[in-house]
Amino acid sequence: MDRHRPGLEGPGDRQAAIARHIRQDAYAAFLGAQVDAIQPGYSRVTLTVAPEMLNFHGAAHGGLLFSLADIAFAAASNARGQMAVALQVSTSFLRPAQAGDRLVAECQEQDLNGPIGLYQITVRRASGELILQSQATVYRKREWFVPPQA
Amino acid sequence: MDRHRPGLEGPGDRQAAIARHIRQDAYAAFLGAQVDAIQPGYSRVTLTVAPEMLNFHGAAHGGLLFSLADIAFAAASNARGQMAVALQVSTSFLRPAQAGDRLVAECQEQDLNGPIGLYQITVRRASGELILQSQATVYRKREWFVPPQA
Amino acid sequence: MDRHRPGLEGPGDRQAAIARHIRQDAYAAFLGAQVDAIQPGYSRVTLTVAPEMLNFHGAAHGGLLFSLADIAFAAASNARGQMAVALQVSTSFLRPAQAGDRLVAECQEQDLNGPIGLYQITVRRASGELILQSQATVYRKREWFVPPQA
Amino acid sequence: MDRHRPGLEGPGDRQAAIARHIRQDAYAAFLGAQVDAIQPGYSRVTLTVAPEMLNFHGAAHGGLLFSLADIAFAAASNARGQMAVALQVSTSFLRPAQAGDRLVAECQEQDLNGPIGLYQITVRRASGELILQSQATVYRKREWFVPPQA
Repeated sequence: MDRHRPGLEGPGDRQAAIARHIRQDAYAAFLGAQVDAIQPGYSRVTLTVAPEMLNFHGAAHGGLLFSLADIAFAAASNARGQMAVALQVSTSFLRPAQAGDRLVAECQEQDLNGPIGLYQITVRRASGELILQSQATVYRKREWFVPPQA
Repeated sequence: MDRHRPGLEGPGDRQAAIARHIRQDAYAAFLGAQVDAIQPGYSRVTLTVAPEMLNFHGAAHGGLLFSLADIAFAAASNARGQMAVALQVSTSFLRPAQAGDRLVAECQEQDLNGPIGLYQITVRRASGELILQSQATVYRKREWFVPPQA
Repeated sequence: MDRHRPGLEGPGDRQAAIARHIRQDAYAAFLGAQVDAIQPGYSRVTLTVAPEMLNFHGAAHGGLLFSLADIAFAAASNARGQMAVALQVSTSFLRPAQAGDRLVAECQEQDLNGPIGLYQITVRRASGELILQSQATVYRKREWFVPPQA
Repeated sequence: MDRHRPGLEGPGDRQAAIARHIRQDAYAAFLGAQVDAIQPGYSRVTLTVAPEMLNFHGAAHGGLLFSLADIAFAAASNARGQMAVALQVSTSFLRPAQAGDRLVAECQEQDLNGPIGLYQITVRRASGELILQSQATVYRKREWFVPPQA
């Protein structure tokens, strides 16, 4: 196999390579989260709340809700192939989620300025109710996990 | 006075009942997190980073690090037996953690004012390096999962 | 129909009374901020950066930028006549502003759930560049500074 | 004048030059805030709430409280002579302050890691009650406003 022959890899191949890398996420697999959409600056991730994800009050754990949002954040902020690491995430918890709830996380880029990127992340029930909203900042490193094209 | 006669529950029994309830956390068990200490306004939780907790860059997932902090936050803020729910958590990610790292989360109450409580949470490597720090707010409901004593 | 007859106060009069109250803000006047638009869940505030608003690096002070955002936040979150107080504001500073810059703050409600309201606030140069973005939470009290209509 | 003659400028002179620069803050002067203490990673700033600093509810404006905290944040994070700019500030508002209240802001460094610095800031009444607490992040630039010593 020779995916890297000159002239054979176009922008579509590059974007597919980035998406493959982002989907090789052990923790997302462990939680059963599915990255449905990855575009530069945007992602959508879905997960169904399982009984082992509940807290001692019987609702979906805040750590689980944040984890779902963070999987979306990582996908959207790394979707240009450049390594982005989270600096800061501010999260509001609006409503509880329950076992069996189908949750949809979306992350949308708000701003890029040099090494800093700003993102908004929401987690909603499939029915639309807002569960969580975050405002989040990444630092973009000089390393690329899929190199930019010449 | 015999506060420990069967049917007469003293302060120590009450604190033990609260700790038992807090330790029945499905998500903490799922992640292998251990709640080592629970006191009113304080907790300490430990976890070792397993391979299934890594992100696509090969470091501990931000969602996992937050989950550990959130388990500590829930323990400290519910440790009076009164139901506390997270309103807002602001998290700074300082350093990456790796597979095999032993992590220690501590949560310390900073302020209580009516229904609002303020907490600081840190996650450190056992060697002391700061991995994550959060400032976090709860809303304390009128419900008690272990009733206050008459 | 004559909603403005003396003694008959319609929705327009009530909204005007709310706007008058919100515009009687000593600190906004002190800074020279102008509340241009007030609607339930929305506001727009403008300010020109004066030399006395600079920090020791010679740029607009972060406290000034936040103050402008906070004036917009207060206007949008109180615009139903119900007293709303800020619980938490998470602010990202994206770009510096300079003396003479005309700044526009906008606040938009994102969610209401019982006593809790969630807002997003932006401060931009008149030319559109993003200077600051906040995600912010209010607690809505049972007091109304302009009573709801029967 | 030869301020750089060997033996004439010691570490004390350098620290004094840094403190002079930090105290030349137009906005702090405009608000009447006084920077009482500046050390690397620490500062203390005081201010008395004046009538022109109140909001339309008659309490100290959130923007004013944040400004006081931000003056302390800037002093502590720039106190090594290296230019530090605020990236993110997460602020909890715990209690209102009133006209005439004497407020004390303190900022304490929590962590330094490469270009990133983490700080905690509190604003208290002189009597000790917590008014505001922030967790805040700076980016430290390669520029120094007072050069490091050879």
